[in-house]
Amino acid sequence: MVNQCGASDLPWHGRGTELDIWGCRFSFYPMNDSFVSIITEALEKTRTDAVWSSIDALSTVYRGRLPFVVDAARGLFVNAYCSDVHMVIEGQFSKGCPGDTDGDSYLALDGEPPNLPRVRDVHFPAIAKIALYPLGTENYIDGIAHVFRMAEDAGLNPKIIHYATRIEGDIHEIFDYLEAACGYAATVASHFALTFTVSVNSPSLEV
Amino acid sequence: MVNQCGASDLPWHGRGTELDIWGCRFSFYPMNDSFVSIITEALEKTRTDAVWSSIDALSTVYRGRLPFVVDAARGLFVNAYCSDVHMVIEGQFSKGCPGDTDGDSYLALDGEPPNLPRVRDVHFPAIAKIALYPLGTENYIDGIAHVFRMAEDAGLNPKIIHYATRIEGDIHEIFDYLEAACGYAATVASHFALTFTVSVNSPSLEV
Repeated sequence: MVNQCGASDLPWHGRGTELDIWGCRFSFYPMNDSFVSIITEALEKTRTDAVWSSIDALSTVYRGRLPFVVDAARGLFVNAYCSDVHMVIEGQFSKGCPGDTDGDSYLALDGEPPNLPRVRDVHFPAIAKIALYPLGTENYIDGIAHVFRMAEDAGLNPKIIHYATRIEGDIHEIFDYLEAACGYAATVASHFALTFTVSVNSPSLEV
Repeated sequence: MVNQCGASDLPWHGRGTELDIWGCRFSFYPMNDSFVSIITEALEKTRTDAVWSSIDALSTVYRGRLPFVVDAARGLFVNAYCSDVHMVIEGQFSKGCPGDTDGDSYLALDGEPPNLPRVRDVHFPAIAKIALYPLGTENYIDGIAHVFRMAEDAGLNPKIIHYATRIEGDIHEIFDYLEAACGYAATVASHFALTFTVSVNSPSLEV
C-alpha cells in the first residue's frame, strides 16, 4: 500500500489524521549562476533543530509542530535573500494524511521558534500565489473562501487568478499569513494541502 | 463571491464542474543569470494558438482542451532546455472548479497538438514530484493510489516521498504520464488539481 503522503505498507485509512504532525515540502530557486552557494549558505545559516528535515534532489522537507515548520521555511528564505537575485520558493504545507506516521518528526519540542529572532528585522516585498486543497470534504469551497478573506483582513491585497489566489506584502506578513491559513485549514479538514509560491525581485514589468 | 479557481461574482456552486476546460498554471525557473532570455526565447518558439494563455509575474496559464494544454507546457519546457542549465517547471493541472467559466479558453479547436511534432525527437532525463488532490470526495485516497500505480505501469519508478510521489524518466514519458494521470483524475472527481515539479540537470549528488 502506498500513498503520496510518505507512508508505505500502511492501511489507507490509518491514524495519520489524528496526529498533529505538520510538514512543508518546498523547493527553492535562485535564478542565478551562483544558485548552489546561495542555497548552501542559507541552509547553513538556518536552524533546523526544532524540525525533522530531509533534503533530496527535488526539495527539502521540514516536519514537526506548525510554528517550527513555518519558522524553518521562513528562516531559510530570508537567509537566502539577496537584493539583486530573483528567487522563488514553492511548496506545500500539509497535515493529516491518513497514512502519515509519527516518525520523521519532532513533536515534543516547545519554546520559541529559533529562526524568527534572527530574521524578523529583515524586510523585503514579495508576491505569492497560494491554493488550498481541503480533502475528503464536500464543503471544501467554503474553506477556500475563508482563507481568501483572511488574506484581505491581513492586508495582503488578494486577487483571484486562475487556479490560485495571488497575494503581496512584506515577507513576514506572507509567512505569518501562511501559518494562520494552515491553522485555519486544519479546523475545516483533517487532511489538506496549502500550496504556495513566493517570489522576490522578479524583473517582470508586470509588478 | 470569490474563489481560487479564477472566477468572481459567481455562485460557489456554479457550472464549472460541467465544463471540459482544462488548465495549467505553471512557473518556470532556469537557475542561470540568463534566465530572462531563456524564458523569452522558449516562449517565442512555442506555439500557443491552440490554448488561451496568460502570463503574469508569477506564472503562465494555458487553458483549453487537455491535449493542447499539455502540449503547450511540454513544448515550452523542451524548447527551453539547455544541457548545461539546471531548470525546473512547477505548477498544477486542474479542471472542474465550480466557479470556473467558459471564458478564457479555446474549446472548439481540434486536430493534432501543434508543438509535439517539433519537440518529440528531443530527449533528456528528468526527475519530478507530483501530488493529486481530488476535491469534494471522501474516496480521494483511492484516486491517489491509482495514479501511483499508473506511474509504475509507465516505468517511471515512482517512490513515496513525504507529501508527494517522485517519478523519473525521459521528459516525454513524464509529460505523457501527466496527461494520462489528468485524464484518469477527471473520472474520479469533478474538481481536482494535480501539482507537479519537473527538474532537469540538478547538480545534486543525490541523483
